[in-house]
Amino acid sequence: MVAKLPEEEHPKQAFGWAARDESGVLSPFDFSRRAIGEKDVCFKVLYCGMCHSDLHMVKNEWGTSTYPLVPGHEIVGVVTEVGSKVEKFKVGDKVGVGTIVGSCHSCHNCTNNLENYCAETILTYGAKYYDGTITYGGYSDIMVADEHFIIRIPDTLPLDSTAPLLCAGITVYSPLKYYGLDKPGMHVGIVGLGGLGHMAVKFAKVMGVKVTVISTSPSKKQEAVEHLGADSFLVSRDQDQMNAAMGTMDGIIDTVSAMHPLAPLIGLLKTNGKLVLVGAPEKPLELAAFPLIMGRKMVGSSGTGGMKETQEMINFAAKHNITADVEVIPIEYVSIAMERMLKADVRYRFVIDIGNTIKSTY
Amino acid sequence: MVAKLPEEEHPKQAFGWAARDESGVLSPFDFSRRAIGEKDVCFKVLYCGMCHSDLHMVKNEWGTSTYPLVPGHEIVGVVTEVGSKVEKFKVGDKVGVGTIVGSCHSCHNCTNNLENYCAETILTYGAKYYDGTITYGGYSDIMVADEHFIIRIPDTLPLDSTAPLLCAGITVYSPLKYYGLDKPGMHVGIVGLGGLGHMAVKFAKVMGVKVTVISTSPSKKQEAVEHLGADSFLVSRDQDQMNAAMGTMDGIIDTVSAMHPLAPLIGLLKTNGKLVLVGAPEKPLELAAFPLIMGRKMVGSSGTGGMKETQEMINFAAKHNITADVEVIPIEYVSIAMERMLKADVRYRFVIDIGNTIKSTY
Repeated sequence: MVAKLPEEEHPKQAFGWAARDESGVLSPFDFSRRAIGEKDVCFKVLYCGMCHSDLHMVKNEWGTSTYPLVPGHEIVGVVTEVGSKVEKFKVGDKVGVGTIVGSCHSCHNCTNNLENYCAETILTYGAKYYDGTITYGGYSDIMVADEHFIIRIPDTLPLDSTAPLLCAGITVYSPLKYYGLDKPGMHVGIVGLGGLGHMAVKFAKVMGVKVTVISTSPSKKQEAVEHLGADSFLVSRDQDQMNAAMGTMDGIIDTVSAMHPLAPLIGLLKTNGKLVLVGAPEKPLELAAFPLIMGRKMVGSSGTGGMKETQEMINFAAKHNITADVEVIPIEYVSIAMERMLKADVRYRFVIDIGNTIKSTY
Repeated sequence: MVAKLPEEEHPKQAFGWAARDESGVLSPFDFSRRAIGEKDVCFKVLYCGMCHSDLHMVKNEWGTSTYPLVPGHEIVGVVTEVGSKVEKFKVGDKVGVGTIVGSCHSCHNCTNNLENYCAETILTYGAKYYDGTITYGGYSDIMVADEHFIIRIPDTLPLDSTAPLLCAGITVYSPLKYYGLDKPGMHVGIVGLGGLGHMAVKFAKVMGVKVTVISTSPSKKQEAVEHLGADSFLVSRDQDQMNAAMGTMDGIIDTVSAMHPLAPLIGLLKTNGKLVLVGAPEKPLELAAFPLIMGRKMVGSSGTGGMKETQEMINFAAKHNITADVEVIPIEYVSIAMERMLKADVRYRFVIDIGNTIKSTY
């Protein structure tokens, strides 16, 4: 079989911005999406958040990228078409797609609403779909996805600042729940005040948890406390501050994906405390067993969430008026935005205004 | 105040074997124990297990040792005297003392039956007691301890092979319970088949758990499966065996205190699987975040147990006829035994016959 061009593989014309090689530079890209199947939903993309993993993927830093690569897995928009057996959505509904668009539906994880941990999970972009074609993400005008992987966005939530909930939001909400760090009166540390970290502060505060932001940047204190409502702030390089906070935390959500020492964080935990990694540094971290054992502490982890929990998270966000703090940009700004993200120069998430700025060449 | 000699500090003459310096060589030692207070119990020591930490302590390998040092924290014997306000024990009772003989009794850990994690916990030997004197362990003829830290040994348990339960036993029983790895039908890996590992196999089997022993030594397979009743055996250096077992375990109790890679063990875990460290390698281990996150796995830990749970463990052992496999030795053999322990040449615990072989010079 002769490989078809992306714009000819499928019947539905689509348009987005893609990286063509490991330079990671994005440029306009004509492609196509499949005709909707019985259980598929097609929606016009209005906004797409920019996740830090988009940066890694456009440059093939994890070694798994294929090109052309259309990034984006914090995608929201409005339904334009539904398959004949779609039950949950109708034309006009506000919907979203997060990090995954497929899974096996039969393994232990899938049958326990943990599709995100299915061994055959299909990522929203840069992955091989059931039909052998490559998935394209939300830096594009339309999306087609199985309704199982579509999230309903409640009407009260603004679409632009809700988009980041579909990855950044669920990535911190899920471990707060799973590790039982959502109980009123608990004390939870949040390491790193970026896209994930600022969402963790918002969720934890609404759960009634006492929140301490832990950061290398003293300059973030005012923002963390006054704007985001954190109860306190620790400069991780200030040994006196860290010593004073030893043994005070029930848990820590560590959002940092740069190399960093775990020992000072483990020191902040109470007996039975839980340090939860949601950022993945490239190289192994150092873990000393003795300080863990002395307090029956654990280093846990979590990666996004299943579809049921993602919907619960969105509904919880709607109930408590939680959205991301975003900087909405046109698609033409995407390269500059990526450069700024590398420098952590964003409060706290870039969201691309797809609906108004992506124009098909067709 | 002029420091008194060990044999003059207290009124009760005692005799044991002590290390005098970092050579770690043990030799006969005259010392004294305090007169029993209102809540104290005095017992004649009959047997004392040899824990691997005794090796580290006699040679000051953790930098915390003081000399003379009388090791031993798997101590069993028969009560000879009780204080006026002792409620739980009477003369003639079979009792034991494990790793701790004191704690603050008022902190969050103490009030939640986790005295072992109290910041002011007093270790059974080589630690400073409330009165400022140094604690001496069970390689000695008599023990005096507060009844709170005394365990009742049920009559059905033989004293010699029960001694190791007070450290090795509780150290593996506690994490099986705490991390929920005690459910029938679960699959749990046990890394390392020494004093701790062989107890973990025995406890887990009685709990109805499917047990796989993981070891570097293929020679231990027959023993693990045929003698201890493990369901299967994995040679950790056999890549094919390890690959075939990927993603099959609910949890792993890792008893190894030598440096070893965690990644292959984490690979054996299912989604939500728990790797629990109970051995403490001297240097930090390498922990890669990504493989953890991909399966919401955790690296937990556990250090011995509280007094309530230690008594529960002993009662559970009595109910199910669980004791350690021991090699009972005279005190004169202790140096050779330590050399053999260094080579892991013991099945599976040395227990010193204190009652018959320690003779006071008084």
